[in-house]
Amino acid sequence: MGTHRGFVLWLTGMSGAGKSTLAERLVAEFQARDYKCELLDGDEVRTHLSKGLGFSKEDRDTNIRRIGWVARVLARNGVIAITAAISPYRDIRDEIRALTEQDGRAVFIEIFAHAPLEALIERDVKGLYKKALAGEIKQFTGITDPYEPPLQPEVTAYTSEEPIETSLDRILDYLAEHDLIDRGA
Amino acid sequence: MGTHRGFVLWLTGMSGAGKSTLAERLVAEFQARDYKCELLDGDEVRTHLSKGLGFSKEDRDTNIRRIGWVARVLARNGVIAITAAISPYRDIRDEIRALTEQDGRAVFIEIFAHAPLEALIERDVKGLYKKALAGEIKQFTGITDPYEPPLQPEVTAYTSEEPIETSLDRILDYLAEHDLIDRGA
Repeated sequence: MGTHRGFVLWLTGMSGAGKSTLAERLVAEFQARDYKCELLDGDEVRTHLSKGLGFSKEDRDTNIRRIGWVARVLARNGVIAITAAISPYRDIRDEIRALTEQDGRAVFIEIFAHAPLEALIERDVKGLYKKALAGEIKQFTGITDPYEPPLQPEVTAYTSEEPIETSLDRILDYLAEHDLIDRGA
Repeated sequence: MGTHRGFVLWLTGMSGAGKSTLAERLVAEFQARDYKCELLDGDEVRTHLSKGLGFSKEDRDTNIRRIGWVARVLARNGVIAITAAISPYRDIRDEIRALTEQDGRAVFIEIFAHAPLEALIERDVKGLYKKALAGEIKQFTGITDPYEPPLQPEVTAYTSEEPIETSLDRILDYLAEHDLIDRGA
């Protein structure tokens, strides 16, 4: 097994911005290097850790804090913890960054999956924006609820404007430059 | 770092039966071997994962399932996950055992911290049994709520009858015999 330092790779962005797709490609990259890696998908975590929570700011914060805690515990044990939840609120993401790095046992890398709202509404793979715009979904990030973009993400992936390989390369380059992974082929 | 297979070391037993003390000694043993190890204490997990949950069977089950999920994710990444929650219900412990072992990536070891109720009431380090017997704590395992002992725990620690070193030795012997750790000195 390849050795590496544990870190949290925190993907944030609106629904449909490509977080899960990016996350799955990253998992494949890390598995190819034989790194220990765990994907904490927003939906999976809601099932296991946060059943019953809704989408108010308070409930979202609770959900995100739980994901953050699990990611941190994994990372400090040498695992790459990839999260792919919308995580719309900046203060909570920053809180998790601080907690992750406070004892020097893990690093927090924020990846902003960015696409303009118009592009997301146009693609609307899951049909959620249509429903949200029609008022059928009450609390929807980007429509009725805020999305607060990261001010200084380690990497931004322009998922509606560049091929995924370009985003992926930029992320892997960042990680290699910071000695978190081997760059490989 | 020493290599080893990940596993869940699930301590179960009533309040005051010595789960946390055993868990802390086990952590020290694993750290001395340079193994990756994480202690999921009942109280810590309640803070991070289960704030707001009470002590009904349903809420306890939810809490224990969450601990089980985190322990399982850690163990399948090569970490020794030690849990030290009362976990009074047999069906939930057995469910977590099955889920942990289902994909062959981790092993579930159940350690029963056993002491007779009379001994626990007599010692009553935290004064909780006194309160429970006086009706000041509504749902208390062993007094008003059931504790269902494991039917086939991998190891039983007779914490009121034997020195902790004896219990500890039995646990470490079991783990070494099953190639989960090096026995060491």
